[in-house]
Amino acid sequence: MRNVTADTITEAVLRTIADTTEPRLRQIMTSLISHLHAFAREVELTSDEWMAAMEFLARVGETTQTDRNEFILASDTLGVSALVDLLHNRASDGAATSSLLGPFYINGERMRSLEVGGDLIGDNEGEPVVVAGRVTTPQGAPIAGACLEIWQNAANGQYESEAPEHAPGNLRCKMFTDDQGRYRFTTIKPVAYTVPYDGPVGTMLQALGRHAWRPAHIHFRITAVGYRPLVTELFVADDAYIDADAVFGVREPLLVDFRRIESPQEAAAYGVTEGYALVTYDFGLQPVA
Amino acid sequence: MRNVTADTITEAVLRTIADTTEPRLRQIMTSLISHLHAFAREVELTSDEWMAAMEFLARVGETTQTDRNEFILASDTLGVSALVDLLHNRASDGAATSSLLGPFYINGERMRSLEVGGDLIGDNEGEPVVVAGRVTTPQGAPIAGACLEIWQNAANGQYESEAPEHAPGNLRCKMFTDDQGRYRFTTIKPVAYTVPYDGPVGTMLQALGRHAWRPAHIHFRITAVGYRPLVTELFVADDAYIDADAVFGVREPLLVDFRRIESPQEAAAYGVTEGYALVTYDFGLQPVA
Repeated sequence: MRNVTADTITEAVLRTIADTTEPRLRQIMTSLISHLHAFAREVELTSDEWMAAMEFLARVGETTQTDRNEFILASDTLGVSALVDLLHNRASDGAATSSLLGPFYINGERMRSLEVGGDLIGDNEGEPVVVAGRVTTPQGAPIAGACLEIWQNAANGQYESEAPEHAPGNLRCKMFTDDQGRYRFTTIKPVAYTVPYDGPVGTMLQALGRHAWRPAHIHFRITAVGYRPLVTELFVADDAYIDADAVFGVREPLLVDFRRIESPQEAAAYGVTEGYALVTYDFGLQPVA
Repeated sequence: MRNVTADTITEAVLRTIADTTEPRLRQIMTSLISHLHAFAREVELTSDEWMAAMEFLARVGETTQTDRNEFILASDTLGVSALVDLLHNRASDGAATSSLLGPFYINGERMRSLEVGGDLIGDNEGEPVVVAGRVTTPQGAPIAGACLEIWQNAANGQYESEAPEHAPGNLRCKMFTDDQGRYRFTTIKPVAYTVPYDGPVGTMLQALGRHAWRPAHIHFRITAVGYRPLVTELFVADDAYIDADAVFGVREPLLVDFRRIESPQEAAAYGVTEGYALVTYDFGLQPVA
């Protein structure tokens, strides 16, 4: 090893993990090391550039807190998160299309429980909307007791964790489907917004001449015993950024219309009054193999 | 973009940086994005594995402090730091071979100034040694006023920043060469040690079945106006780990003998008494192009 060169070092590193017991770990690390080295070699990365990368990563680490994961944001903006999602979540017949988790998912007590038909609006300003539908098997049979975790941004474009003026848990909830697999909640229409632009990832996007906008969307994470967890987003179909999402999360089947409710009868059927918009969406879950 | 697939997403991401103004940045990011995507695709990275990677990076971030850079340690143990060094620091005739900076370099007030001939031993236990030589041009002409930053570990294997029982700045100093380009200091012989094993990189090494040992060495960073900074290490030639460095830093020309001083006359020439070991090494610097 004392005579290692730029041409032989990759082999030298790979030899140190040749005996790794866990074959999947060995496979992943072999590929990761090979590609990291190929990258450095291809661009002839200099020590100053490498040091700048180390400093960037340290700043990403400093920016990452319970409520904000700047590593996920970096992965999202470089399209890695979307690729990982696309590699494995090829929607099969009857199963919903998946999308990104994003950096604002929070598990825990700030996800209050809401009954089916409950209200997320509280004192938020914005266009009222009722979102309703079912969680089903790929064949359309209802899944009762499925858990939906739901989160979205407020009229100012921010998630509650970004904005201290929001009540804890604002526009976040957890809801279990009823015995017919139904879910329903009122909320405000989400708005287009920029991913956090004040941290190192924002600096990177600016240096790359990239915008930070995401089209308006509502996040869902849906779990049920015996089914694969579904992470996805519903997008406002006519959003100006629908074809320019900074994190590459938009999928055609996830575009939804926010259509105006047109009669008192229709409103009553969804437990609201006229003046609400309506979004309906059924989520098919894939059984665990 | 709403119809992006696992096959087309890399192109979609690269299109967003096609107009990046700075060509070198565009080149680096194009290569980085391509290789990250190729890696994820090659191993068919799953969402759970991706999430584990995000958690690993968050832990690396938490572990990174002023005195300890876990990102640099990760880069070192994956051989990326060594590759970057090897790509650019191909020693030319008369210039010293470079090596890694490592995670323990500290710039600032804990690097006290020491006169040529000064003592770093203080109250450290260990085998006393005098290290002496010159900083020169590639042709061997002395460079006066070159600045050497020097740091090494103590008898317990730890750098002062790792061990609160050490005095601040223990076994670290900065020294300027005299008008004949000479440097000289007394210290203790460094010892083999493990890179920090209590953080996420240690966990990674254990999972990979890798040891964390480095052969004993003294770090140098040498700067002089008109010359390229030199970052290097001198290694104890007969160390048991000399061919198994966990961070791939050993280079044949950097192996040095710690030879016993054999006469009072020789000791006097180096300003010490018998019982010291002697290491001599001349560092050639490359002029700035």
